[in-house]
Amino acid sequence: MPTNHDPDTPDAPDSTASDHAADSTTLDPRDVDYETPVERFGAAELTDDHLARFPQPPHPMLRRGVFYAGRDVDALLDACESEAPLSVVTGVGPSGPMHLGHVLPFYVAKWLQAATGAHVYLPLSDDEKYLTRDLSLADVRWYTRENLRDLLAVGFDPERTRIVVDTADADVVYPLATALSKHLTPATVEAVYGAPDSAGAGFYPAVQATHLLLPQFVRGPHTTTVPIAVDQDPHVRLARDLAAKERFDVEKPGALLARFLPALDGPGKMSTTSGDGAPTIALTDDRETVHEKVARYAYSGGQSSVAAHREHGGDPEVDVAFRYLRAFFEPDDATVERLARDYRSGDLLTGELKAYAADRIADFLDAHRARRPSDADLDAALAPYRLTDRERERALAAVGLGPDLSTAAGEH
Amino acid sequence: MPTNHDPDTPDAPDSTASDHAADSTTLDPRDVDYETPVERFGAAELTDDHLARFPQPPHPMLRRGVFYAGRDVDALLDACESEAPLSVVTGVGPSGPMHLGHVLPFYVAKWLQAATGAHVYLPLSDDEKYLTRDLSLADVRWYTRENLRDLLAVGFDPERTRIVVDTADADVVYPLATALSKHLTPATVEAVYGAPDSAGAGFYPAVQATHLLLPQFVRGPHTTTVPIAVDQDPHVRLARDLAAKERFDVEKPGALLARFLPALDGPGKMSTTSGDGAPTIALTDDRETVHEKVARYAYSGGQSSVAAHREHGGDPEVDVAFRYLRAFFEPDDATVERLARDYRSGDLLTGELKAYAADRIADFLDAHRARRPSDADLDAALAPYRLTDRERERALAAVGLGPDLSTAAGEH
Repeated sequence: MPTNHDPDTPDAPDSTASDHAADSTTLDPRDVDYETPVERFGAAELTDDHLARFPQPPHPMLRRGVFYAGRDVDALLDACESEAPLSVVTGVGPSGPMHLGHVLPFYVAKWLQAATGAHVYLPLSDDEKYLTRDLSLADVRWYTRENLRDLLAVGFDPERTRIVVDTADADVVYPLATALSKHLTPATVEAVYGAPDSAGAGFYPAVQATHLLLPQFVRGPHTTTVPIAVDQDPHVRLARDLAAKERFDVEKPGALLARFLPALDGPGKMSTTSGDGAPTIALTDDRETVHEKVARYAYSGGQSSVAAHREHGGDPEVDVAFRYLRAFFEPDDATVERLARDYRSGDLLTGELKAYAADRIADFLDAHRARRPSDADLDAALAPYRLTDRERERALAAVGLGPDLSTAAGEH
Repeated sequence: MPTNHDPDTPDAPDSTASDHAADSTTLDPRDVDYETPVERFGAAELTDDHLARFPQPPHPMLRRGVFYAGRDVDALLDACESEAPLSVVTGVGPSGPMHLGHVLPFYVAKWLQAATGAHVYLPLSDDEKYLTRDLSLADVRWYTRENLRDLLAVGFDPERTRIVVDTADADVVYPLATALSKHLTPATVEAVYGAPDSAGAGFYPAVQATHLLLPQFVRGPHTTTVPIAVDQDPHVRLARDLAAKERFDVEKPGALLARFLPALDGPGKMSTTSGDGAPTIALTDDRETVHEKVARYAYSGGQSSVAAHREHGGDPEVDVAFRYLRAFFEPDDATVERLARDYRSGDLLTGELKAYAADRIADFLDAHRARRPSDADLDAALAPYRLTDRERERALAAVGLGPDLSTAAGEH
């Protein structure tokens, strides 16, 4: 196990493996195909009509277009309006510390939970990270603990939120994944994920589908949605295909598909995943560090001198500080509009815009960290978020397994 | 779920799926290659020197050649002689009621346990049966309960015996199988098992290897052996290959390889697995039924008339009643020799030999059934045979996982 010299600045066992491939929005926008899911694979763009039906006002990531498409959005909105059961699934692959971009979708899920009473399921695919990275299970477990602390810091309602770790909740995850895996061919796995390197990697897609269907295994069939970066849409499609086989009593999970936020140094630049000094804002960065990173690294839409900026103005559309504010950190629409207008006109200088963004980000991080449990408190803090015995029984019963060896599913 | 009209005569949910592909010696000897494991794949024939080093006298199935080869037999015998730790693994695939031939190897394991103090691990691969047969998980769970009652009837020492059901012990089985599965390529799976039909079937070989290595995950590296029908030897080889990678602190499991016993109606005849009326002796058959089945169906080495038999004698080598007695049911060597001699001379008639064999088999079944717990008592009877919390912790620690999410492996 790596030694955690400082609980707030964890050492990475393997700094080359700090990306989160299976989680939601990250900061690397390269090579992303935003059109294909909509044009070829049945996703639909989010419309103004959709946005008018979300709880008002919709979260900034929705109303400002970071989430730009979805699947079965009408069913989601019907559930929002009718107070019918609704669940949200969004997970994390614990292969490194979470960075700023990793946690933002969880705050969207928290918003939806607060606005609608939705249940939220947060799966951590530690098995997948072990299987696909040069990490031991002990390494991955260590990252899992760190990531759990950040998930707990988001502040979900423990009554309506379940956190599932594949290896630690294998009593439920494995039987459900086995149930699904009978109906998932190796050819489908290879088509969606490429040829697997190991027997475990070839099975993991069944675990991933289990994550997306778990709310329905626990609570019965109901509307579920998966807020996810668009490149993860194939996982949702695979789970929808399994649900469509009608082997189990589940509805197809829907999705909300997000664009990537740019890396701090701009779209197409060094990814957050390279681990070789590329700038990222860590969840552990203090206020001074955030200001320093934004000032030094944030790709600017401004001019090369103050004089030129005053004369020609800047371009907020390519300015990373502005885009972060618009995507998440500035909730007030009028303020966002004013910042864009003043930046375009040259009234707002790059340094001023960056300082404003850094303050909002630091405020967010201060609040996040204040809620983050210590490593010593993790188990106690996590306990109310784990599946209850009754929930485990119901999930197993959904695939025909009784709660113990001598009891049939549904019997007591 | 099928209705169990009579607890002693269970209905099969699917009578076409009543074989036990992954378990030990069955009664179908067709198409078995006894030579290749020894000549090409490194198994060694059991020698008289080996037999002299087993606890004396060796079990009839050993000393009369049903078990005819093995892997690392010297290590097994060293452990027998030195009282070093020793474990035996032999499992069952619960896809139907167990028949007479299925339970015999478990009695060999019980003999080895009584003679040496060996620990015995009995895995039930319910996941595999679900994945590879036209059975639901509920169907397989129902067979699992029936099979568990028979395993408990064998009378293993609960202090030294652990029964593991893949879906019911998934909290341990899945993390261990995941650990191994990273080092098992799809190409190896396909070479050993053929191309898998499903993602689950492609993962199961890692679960199977987990079974064979589980004693060492629980108790640390030590000598283990797998008494198994010779056609199952590839599973042992696969687990040995994984152990040889030295990713985990385990030794290669050894094996004792058995010939098949003939079906009741003779070698090459209708298999026990066809479910279309082929005669088998069920564990539930009463004394009268056993006599009737042996009298009517057992392939005879005798002559076509009493007169011809008296004159020419019979051939015990092809007589199924004799072969059953020799393989298992007649412990006394002198009696076996006398029966063979008298049958060859014609002094012993086929009807007499059959009646003697039927009595020995019925005695065995009476004793077996007397120890078989009722369905209502199954959970209580099974409890002392399940992995303890401490054993589960040790097994998970062997692959780097702590007993709970916030505790590292080996910490408390």
